Formats: sequence, C-alpha cells, structure tokens
Amino acid sequence: MIDITHGIPPQHVLQGALVLAKTLPYMPPGVHVAVVDPGVGSDRKPVALQGAEGRFYVGPDNGLLLVAADRLGGIEQAVEITSEEHMLTPVSRTFHGRDIFSPAAAHLALGVELAELGQSLDPEELRRLEVPEPQVGSSRIRATALYVDRFGNIQLNLTSGDLEQVGIVPGTKVELEVRFERYFAIAARTFAEVRPGDVVVYEDAYRAIALAINQGDAAHMLSARVGEEVLLWPA
Amino acid sequence: MIDITHGIPPQHVLQGALVLAKTLPYMPPGVHVAVVDPGVGSDRKPVALQGAEGRFYVGPDNGLLLVAADRLGGIEQAVEITSEEHMLTPVSRTFHGRDIFSPAAAHLALGVELAELGQSLDPEELRRLEVPEPQVGSSRIRATALYVDRFGNIQLNLTSGDLEQVGIVPGTKVELEVRFERYFAIAARTFAEVRPGDVVVYEDAYRAIALAINQGDAAHMLSARVGEEVLLWPA
Amino acid sequence: MIDITHGIPPQHVLQGALVLAKTLPYMPPGVHVAVVDPGVGSDRKPVALQGAEGRFYVGPDNGLLLVAADRLGGIEQAVEITSEEHMLTPVSRTFHGRDIFSPAAAHLALGVELAELGQSLDPEELRRLEVPEPQVGSSRIRATALYVDRFGNIQLNLTSGDLEQVGIVPGTKVELEVRFERYFAIAARTFAEVRPGDVVVYEDAYRAIALAINQGDAAHMLSARVGEEVLLWPA
Repeated sequence: MIDITHGIPPQHVLQGALVLAKTLPYMPPGVHVAVVDPGVGSDRKPVALQGAEGRFYVGPDNGLLLVAADRLGGIEQAVEITSEEHMLTPVSRTFHGRDIFSPAAAHLALGVELAELGQSLDPEELRRLEVPEPQVGSSRIRATALYVDRFGNIQLNLTSGDLEQVGIVPGTKVELEVRFERYFAIAARTFAEVRPGDVVVYEDAYRAIALAINQGDAAHMLSARVGEEVLLWPA
Repeated sequence: MIDITHGIPPQHVLQGALVLAKTLPYMPPGVHVAVVDPGVGSDRKPVALQGAEGRFYVGPDNGLLLVAADRLGGIEQAVEITSEEHMLTPVSRTFHGRDIFSPAAAHLALGVELAELGQSLDPEELRRLEVPEPQVGSSRIRATALYVDRFGNIQLNLTSGDLEQVGIVPGTKVELEVRFERYFAIAARTFAEVRPGDVVVYEDAYRAIALAINQGDAAHMLSARVGEEVLLWPA
Repeated sequence: MIDITHGIPPQHVLQGALVLAKTLPYMPPGVHVAVVDPGVGSDRKPVALQGAEGRFYVGPDNGLLLVAADRLGGIEQAVEITSEEHMLTPVSRTFHGRDIFSPAAAHLALGVELAELGQSLDPEELRRLEVPEPQVGSSRIRATALYVDRFGNIQLNLTSGDLEQVGIVPGTKVELEVRFERYFAIAARTFAEVRPGDVVVYEDAYRAIALAINQGDAAHMLSARVGEEVLLWPA
C-alpha cells in the first residue's frame, strides 16, 4: 500500500483530481483509490474503473478519477459498485471511503473481476470535471490558479507553450496582476536563478507553469488561493 | 504496521481514547499502541493489557486505552510494564512512547508473554476516563462536543435514540444553542440532503450524532471546540 | 520503508539536519534519504555517502546529511550523483527528491555500488552547517532555539553540563529572557514535576535542554521561533 496524500483540502474535488493525475504516472500500476466526496449520501454513484496498463480506479463518480484515467490511456470498462457482498455492511451514509471504496479496491487487488462489483456503466456517461482553460491573447494571458502546494507555490493552468505565445521565455521580466495588485516577476528555469524574495514564473516538475518566491511563500505573499485569476504579460 | 493517526491534539487524552475506540473495530486484532501522555514522568503507570479477540493494548494508564478495550470485550489480564530488559535503556523521562511503549508492543508482537513485561495489575484498578453523559429532558437535550474532525464536523455524546426522545428524527427542524448563540439546523440522514451552508444534525459513520455544514466547517462557524456544551430542541 | 517525517518547515535545512541526527540512532542501518533542498536547480551537488555501520545517506550537498553522518561514525566514501542511468529522466529542475535522490537510494538499497552512482568526492569538501554554539558565562547563558516540536517545546543548543556551569540543576528557579520579555521558569527532570502552566527547563528525550510548559505550548507563549536567542540565569 502506498499512501499518496491526506492533504487535499475538504471538498476540493478538482485539486484531488489534479494531484492524482500528476502523481499516478510515478506510481506502479495497481488499484488506485481516491476519496474527495462532498456528495456522499446523494445520488452520485460509487464507481470502479478499469483503465489502461493494468490500472484500476475506485471512488465517487464526481470527476475525481477521470483526469488521471483519461491522461493514462482512458477507461476500458466501468461499473457502478452495487454488490453488497463486496461492501462493509451496514453501509454508512457519510463514509463510503471506509464502507464501499476501500473494500471494493481490496477485492480488486485480490483478483476479483471488475464486473463482479456491480452493474456496467458506459464510460462516456461518467461525470467529468471542467478544468479551467486559460485565455492566451497576443500580449497577455489570463490564467487560473489550479493548485497551491505546501511551499506556497502556485500551479497555473498554463504550459511553457502558452507563455511563449506572448513572448515570455526564461529570462523575460514579467508583470503579474492578482486581486487588483500588480507584481514584478521573472521567468526562469528554476527559483535558484533569482534572488531570495523574487517572484519567479517557471515550469514545475510536472511541466505546468507555476509561480514561486525564492525562499518564500508565493501564495501568502500574493494572497492567492485555488481558483484565483492571474494575469501575466511581459513587463 | 498500520499508522492510525498522528492528528490527536497535544494532551487530549479523551479525544485519543474516543478515536481509538471508534477505529479499532475496523482494525485487525493485534497489538495496539497509543500515546497521548501528558503525565509522562509522573507516577502514572505504563501498562500493557490483554483484551478479547487476541487484542493487546499498550500505553499510559491514563484512560486512553480503556474506552476501546472495554467496548471490545474487556480486559483479561493487565500488567504494569516494569521489565527493563523489554525497554530501550536508558529510559528518557519525557518520551515513553519511544523507550517503553513501542518496545513493549514489539515484544508482544514477537510472541513474548504479557506476564514477562512486568507485574500483574487488577484490571479494575486501571484509570478510566469519565466520558460526559448528555442530559436528555422531555423537550430539550444538553450535549457535549466530544470530537471535531478535520472537516470541522462536531461529534456529540448522543445517539439517534436520544434525539428521538425529544422528537427529533430525520426531517425535523432543530434549534441549537452554542456559546449563547442560536442557530437553525435540520435533522437529516446525510449532509447531501440539505442545501450548501445549512447546519445538519445527522448520525455519523460511527453511529454517533454529529453536527456538520454541507460543504462547510461547522466547528469554525459555530465557534465550537471539544468540550463545548450544545443545547438542541425541535424548532 | 520507514517514513520519518514530512513536518520540516520549508527551507529549514538546519532543522532537517538536527531531526535526522536525533532520529537515525533509533533507525536500523539502511539507506537514509533526506530532502530539504532550497538550492535545487543551483550548482549545489546531489550526493550519496557511505557512512559507518552500513548506513548510506542520499540528498543535497547543503549540510542536511552531515550532522547525522558525522555523529554516527563519519563518512567512508562520497560521490556526486552524476550517473543518468540511475536517475529518472528527464530530470526536472525543481524536484530532485523525485528524479535523483529517491532513484539513487533505491539503487543503493538493491545493492548497486556507491561508486556506480557518480564521481568520487572528498568527504572533507562536503558542505557542513554551522550549528550555533551557546555562550556560557559564569552566571548567564546565551542560547539559541534550534527546534520547535508540534507540542511547542523548544529545543536549545545546550546540554545539562552547560546549565550546571551557571548553577542550574533540577529544582533551581530560573529566569529567562526571550525577545526582551522576562519569564520565571523552573529546572526539573520532567514537566510533570511542575504545575500546569509553569515554564520548565528540562533535559529532553534526546539529551538536549528544552523549554516546555506543562500542558501548554511554550513556543506560542514565549513567541519563540527557531533561531531565537534565549538568555537563562538562576533567579
């Protein structure tokens, strides 16, 4: 068993989905259970999915599993978990992680066939999250903060290709606007290239563009949270 | 080794005892070590207990282990851990988790007999915590907050039977008083049944009555902490 | 795999080094990976070290590994990790924990020779941290807070021998100055010897002198952080 994180803030399904998607490529194939489940007790379905490369996904049908599964080759087979003999009964109304998802995952890990866990679902009907898209103009980018890590680094919904479209490459001075406040930053390959305290725009270890402060906490300094709009342009 | 939690707030023996009691039924029999130990270095005894179903308990004699052990069939045999050859020496005065409890548990897990760890104790003489009892009147309940989880959900010392005595069942509108402030709430089977932001009174996954806010943090909104008094009555 | 902690505050290399040094004596020999790496992406070297007693150390050459390695018998052999076939490629510029250190440690754990990981380094040229030294006068001590644990206990760069030089032994009343504020404290063998709320000066479980408050949080009460200067003298 590998415990990836217990650090997703409550109810943040999109953050959970993104962390899963960026972490699983570094995890061996197996049964991946994820639970960020504000809709527990509603009619959202508990699901188990068979993906590519021998990977299985178990969790709520709220989009949490799909960003990862879609990026890792898609879904070959999906079921709604309905088989009571593969659950911990009586099933509580508010903790399906314990009573439905973990037992289903344990059964899959022991070799139980996916189809035994419940009734088949069309993978196209699974709920998918809308990951915010950036607006990349000719001289300016409107981006969204997708994730803030424990260092306060802010991951944006941008790639280095997006930055290049407005002329931002490593070395470019950049201006940022967050919550009506403007900041100077510098595009760099790594935060060690800038002075302590400088804001840096860089490609992070998952190939997403992120904002950081060398030896500081960018989210705190910029008062930025997940979902925050960030404008960027060459200074 | 299964690591249940490192999230008990410092010195909160009762919270530790309640988490242990509600978690162990989902854990396989084995040697359970728990350390919330503000009295380390005083004359409180280090103890090892043999319970029912092949379960052992190791920790300080401050009540931490007893709520769980009593609920899971009681204690068959108890010793004060005094055998130095089963300790890590020299024993520090402030970290018996490392020097006494973990080594004793490791020896038990390896098959050492309980009696070898020290001198026998009468299980009746072990220290037991007083778990606060609710006052259930004909129309009103005076309850106590026992535990607040990381979602801000507040577990009370109530069962659904207590609520029924004052006429509160799923669907009933409820009035709450916490710290001289009053709030409206609704009794429901799950927080997904109420609107986002509503306060809900529900039976949680451990069959205790709890307060939550759908997609919110009840402890923060109600300024309620462990030990807080909560009054409830039908609205 | 034993996961020691994920609780070192970002960028605090010295805290990481001290936690490693006090924890490893309780860990079995093996391959120890540590990553507190604010200089990732700069010219600081990734290193792997062979120490005494079958211990290996892997991490950044910023002093993080050396306090532990020096205390546990010194370093027999050191390499800069340069072998790309023992890395996860492409190597990111900001997360060598994932791409260089963990893969190198995994190879060592599988029996790969240290020399295969890269080019030899002189152990004397590895970067060492300066651990602050106390000033112990004839009647007064000027100490530094090295570490604050999750209970708020403050570890100082002092031993019981330092305290004895100014006449502080268990039972002595002590005066403290932190941030221009003065406090009374008592030297004791354990915090259980003083009343709840009292500040206590004691030898902690790692044989360092620490400040604590019985059933309280000393760091919060004294507004003390890592690096804080603490003056002590007999009251």
